[in-house]
Amino acid sequence: MRDSQDLFPTRLERKLGMFERIDPVVYGDEAQLANGPLDKSQIEAYERDGFLSFDGFFDPDDMQAFIDELRGYEDDADLKLSEGTVLEPGREEIRTVFGIHQVSERFNRLTRDPRLLAIVKQLLGSDVYIHQSRINYKPGFKGKGFDWHSDFETWHSEDGMPRMRALSCSIVLTDNGEFNGPLMLIPGSHRYFVPCVGRTPENNYKESLKSQEVGVPPASSLRELMLENDIEAPKGPAGSLIIFECNTLHGSNINMSCWPRSNLFFVYNSVENTLHEPYCGNRPRPEFLADRSDWQPLEPLGEP
Amino acid sequence: MRDSQDLFPTRLERKLGMFERIDPVVYGDEAQLANGPLDKSQIEAYERDGFLSFDGFFDPDDMQAFIDELRGYEDDADLKLSEGTVLEPGREEIRTVFGIHQVSERFNRLTRDPRLLAIVKQLLGSDVYIHQSRINYKPGFKGKGFDWHSDFETWHSEDGMPRMRALSCSIVLTDNGEFNGPLMLIPGSHRYFVPCVGRTPENNYKESLKSQEVGVPPASSLRELMLENDIEAPKGPAGSLIIFECNTLHGSNINMSCWPRSNLFFVYNSVENTLHEPYCGNRPRPEFLADRSDWQPLEPLGEP
Repeated sequence: MRDSQDLFPTRLERKLGMFERIDPVVYGDEAQLANGPLDKSQIEAYERDGFLSFDGFFDPDDMQAFIDELRGYEDDADLKLSEGTVLEPGREEIRTVFGIHQVSERFNRLTRDPRLLAIVKQLLGSDVYIHQSRINYKPGFKGKGFDWHSDFETWHSEDGMPRMRALSCSIVLTDNGEFNGPLMLIPGSHRYFVPCVGRTPENNYKESLKSQEVGVPPASSLRELMLENDIEAPKGPAGSLIIFECNTLHGSNINMSCWPRSNLFFVYNSVENTLHEPYCGNRPRPEFLADRSDWQPLEPLGEP
Repeated sequence: MRDSQDLFPTRLERKLGMFERIDPVVYGDEAQLANGPLDKSQIEAYERDGFLSFDGFFDPDDMQAFIDELRGYEDDADLKLSEGTVLEPGREEIRTVFGIHQVSERFNRLTRDPRLLAIVKQLLGSDVYIHQSRINYKPGFKGKGFDWHSDFETWHSEDGMPRMRALSCSIVLTDNGEFNGPLMLIPGSHRYFVPCVGRTPENNYKESLKSQEVGVPPASSLRELMLENDIEAPKGPAGSLIIFECNTLHGSNINMSCWPRSNLFFVYNSVENTLHEPYCGNRPRPEFLADRSDWQPLEPLGEP
């Protein structure tokens, strides 16, 4: 089921220059765009910048229930040993739990929040399913950063996602400030595909979840995009939401503050953009990183 | 010449709690304080927060001459091999040059800038000399961070600086923004002495200039101080100045942006606070880290 032509060549041994995006950013048709929930100026901002942020989209008090549930997982030996859980070097604390919506009914319901889902479907112009979900912890003083990358670059090469028709919803469960390693984005970077250099080793994910060695954009391209549109790091109280396009370059710094940061990520993919074989030629990554078995459209909570 | 009692015990094997500062923050007498250059509100802010920042204190264009001179040092094999120069791991780029005012007449003259020196003498209430000078480079994408620390804690234990009567002037040679690893400070932290745990190895400086292992304040103390007064990171164009008290806890993050950051540091010590033997009991560190041979009062430029 491999496409005859790979439209987004990357992970090659030679360096290729970045090139302009060929896919739409917003897929909703005129009627979908006119009907909301996002208004015209929000749609335009998403199209231009590759992300949108909403202060206090969810109630901060509601977020506490999620944090309490996560804290319980620290004592769950089975979960800590499962392959979808990435531990900090000391192996006491959880850094990332993948597939959190499959682990927890509470998180599963949140993926189907009607307000959230309506926005996602408006932008992607179709029904959607969860390609990946994860929770990233950054404990105070020791939470690690993530280098600059495009999610789509990885999802295309390692998971076989054919086109740029997916997005991430990042919900901050803790207050996101200047100093606890907030998500940083390069506005406008989604309008270019930046090929990365280097063949992808088999089972690359085992290393890349700790430290990314392939799928790293060249510094020259990052510089060019930063000089054009700078960097932004939306701040906000617990319950704030950042929606960012699958190809928007993003990263985050070390958490040097005492304030822990927990970010929840739901990746929604269009049901018209389901996975092929990985374009890098390797075996597919595990299901907790890229769902290949359940592409049923998500139904909003409270509807049949 | 060791004091009979060490007023600031640190680097011990057991953990000691932090305690309130016993030294003044501002030393100028009533006449000195009334005569400026800092006004009453600035003096109060320095006393309360432990630092003051000045947007565009120097002309940004003048800063370019300093940067050009530094760039020339990249080709200076002798300087790169000297002990006061710390190279990046690849050994191509310079991370830090200590004793920059001894290397360069241009930098030497800047330490005696009349406006700068008048402020320093007003705060320290006496004549002053340069205890240490350095230039820190943080290249785009790879400039490293510095963990939280109090300079005085190191200068006391490793250099024998008896009391808290010194300050640093940090002059930014490049624009300092949110994303290129700006200096971060904990306001009010200078009002406590935070003992650090762990004996100091001989020649510790050879390691500590790369990665600090001793002289690291306990996370519990850092947390307490951050919860009280948060963190601040003054931003500003090239030529901006931050003056911070020798005991103010500070650090900086990795530079994940494309914008290099070069910060110049001049440490002024009161001539009434010259060095004793190191309180940690080790041999003194080299002169490029702690001047032990020239404690002559600095004369402002243009005066005899």
